[in-house]
Amino acid sequence: MTSFKTVLAEIKWSSVLKRTTINDIARELNISFSTVARALNDHPAISTATKEAVRETAQRLNYRQNKLASSLRSGYTKVVGVVVPSLDVSFFSSVVHGIERIMNENGYSILLYQSNESFEQEAKGVGTFLQSRVDGIIASVAKETETYEHFAEIKKRNIPLLFFDRAPEILGAPAVLIDDYKGGFLATEHLIKQGYKRIVHITASKTINIFKERLRGYTEALKFYNLPVDESLIMYGDFSIEFGRACIKKLYEQKVSFDAVFALEDFTAMGVLQQLKVYQVQVPEEVGVIGFANESFAALVTPGLSTMDQQTVRMGEEAAELFLKMLKAVNAYENPPGKTVLDPILIVRESTSRTA
Amino acid sequence: MTSFKTVLAEIKWSSVLKRTTINDIARELNISFSTVARALNDHPAISTATKEAVRETAQRLNYRQNKLASSLRSGYTKVVGVVVPSLDVSFFSSVVHGIERIMNENGYSILLYQSNESFEQEAKGVGTFLQSRVDGIIASVAKETETYEHFAEIKKRNIPLLFFDRAPEILGAPAVLIDDYKGGFLATEHLIKQGYKRIVHITASKTINIFKERLRGYTEALKFYNLPVDESLIMYGDFSIEFGRACIKKLYEQKVSFDAVFALEDFTAMGVLQQLKVYQVQVPEEVGVIGFANESFAALVTPGLSTMDQQTVRMGEEAAELFLKMLKAVNAYENPPGKTVLDPILIVRESTSRTA
Repeated sequence: MTSFKTVLAEIKWSSVLKRTTINDIARELNISFSTVARALNDHPAISTATKEAVRETAQRLNYRQNKLASSLRSGYTKVVGVVVPSLDVSFFSSVVHGIERIMNENGYSILLYQSNESFEQEAKGVGTFLQSRVDGIIASVAKETETYEHFAEIKKRNIPLLFFDRAPEILGAPAVLIDDYKGGFLATEHLIKQGYKRIVHITASKTINIFKERLRGYTEALKFYNLPVDESLIMYGDFSIEFGRACIKKLYEQKVSFDAVFALEDFTAMGVLQQLKVYQVQVPEEVGVIGFANESFAALVTPGLSTMDQQTVRMGEEAAELFLKMLKAVNAYENPPGKTVLDPILIVRESTSRTA
Repeated sequence: MTSFKTVLAEIKWSSVLKRTTINDIARELNISFSTVARALNDHPAISTATKEAVRETAQRLNYRQNKLASSLRSGYTKVVGVVVPSLDVSFFSSVVHGIERIMNENGYSILLYQSNESFEQEAKGVGTFLQSRVDGIIASVAKETETYEHFAEIKKRNIPLLFFDRAPEILGAPAVLIDDYKGGFLATEHLIKQGYKRIVHITASKTINIFKERLRGYTEALKFYNLPVDESLIMYGDFSIEFGRACIKKLYEQKVSFDAVFALEDFTAMGVLQQLKVYQVQVPEEVGVIGFANESFAALVTPGLSTMDQQTVRMGEEAAELFLKMLKAVNAYENPPGKTVLDPILIVRESTSRTA
């Protein structure tokens, strides 16, 4: 166990009170910025006397020299800010654990900010992180967000920015994503192979890209296996336990015949399971149910919920690795690391194990 | 929806780059600190010319006047840091939501840091927040933490510090707690009233105060209802799904007779339910099970898990309200707001509803 003394030693305590800049030293000695900068870098054009004076003043003012290329900035904080919709959702908290592990190993601390799916909160979070002078920001975009000025501001300041899972295409920032199309395809294919034929898909009415991709995977899988794409089996709306329940109620009220449900994410699938239980429908015998995300409760409920695992910890680790490249680059955006797309993994539990 | 422009306007962008202090203005004009301070406060002893010069310089350097008592500090950030063991645990993420709601309403942003139950991580988190110059810190202590220098450091700097749920007694910092003794008593009393007689209690071997209090509540309830306190029914160890399973295995291997389990928290209770299912024991008919914390999965599992609700959102709100008092005080520790102790609430679900 590291003692608090060691931890203290690693923290730049001088910067807690006031970060001394080259300008402060220049002002103190009444010499130019460039003279101070060159003195600190032991430039031959600067006299020994000046170098001495600069060093003495730098020491007195607790100046911490930044040896990296962008030393003109006021100094690195070794803190990275992460903006996520909600840490209640185990998908996000799990990705964050992956990010933390790698970043901590590399000497960075992670501060978290929850947007609670609100655009306003998200923009405030970005502002707070910039104000706290984080070295970079990793983000997953809120449900409500439709404009991206706040993220553009980060890039404009040349501060590294990377997205995971929910990434706005237009900014061209590096991102770590899941292949949601493939996830939708694999989930639907699994249901088809279990013998289900009339498969409902619950999707979001909002134009969130990941959900559109899952829907596309669903329709393509049906076509691939020569099953009809029946619009009456596609339910558009929200995502929540309540919405999952409401969908099943609606299907029963409208007497729509179906034998399986692929819900866009696990909370909605949970609502589906609950409402089927109310109607005393046997899962998986009469109706099969699959979700998406492998939320922590999916393994704990009865019947266990089949779902698509998103390799969350790996996603966080990949995001951190890419981000480290940006942090180490002289210019984070000159040669950005691009996109990483991970494959989702099918997790089969009782809720679809009809032929087991 | 607030535009990003409005959000931007609310953020002290000047401080993003460099926080200008009274000292900077004094140095720039070659006058004393107190002259600048008095000029900014329109003091009659200062000449109009000096005031003009100070104002012009303050504006040029983007100086933001701090009108509060402690204006000698470099300025408030309107950011509060929250250090929690893990946001995977819905108890903590739910308290954080309560804190966020109240603090956001009062113009504060909340940044989060996860200790992951590690002392070292926790100390680093505190250091990171101090480095980021947060206005105050709210914390719940990690499992591993046994010394409190890092928290003492916050208090020494006269920065507001408040604990919730897991609070070290010795620091005398304000705290919002749950009456864990009462929770242990009520959980055990409920089992007794349902007719259970040989009640196992799973508790932690570590000396975490909240778990000692729950154990005390358990033994006092048994005594109150004239039931024997049988040491073979008290299982000491860890808390996790795995440990809950292990406890049931051990009880069966050792042929200990029991008809109910009160687990120190819900994940452990979940493990108990899973292992009882393996042994095909009927819950609640043969064995009743109650947990503690009302984790989000407790309502979703089958049978639904009875538990003690800790009024998490209210706990967060109370913590935020107390904290605002500290933030507004000239000296946060001169007249600290003391402790708030909330009552846990019994939540009865299927896992103990034998007489229902």
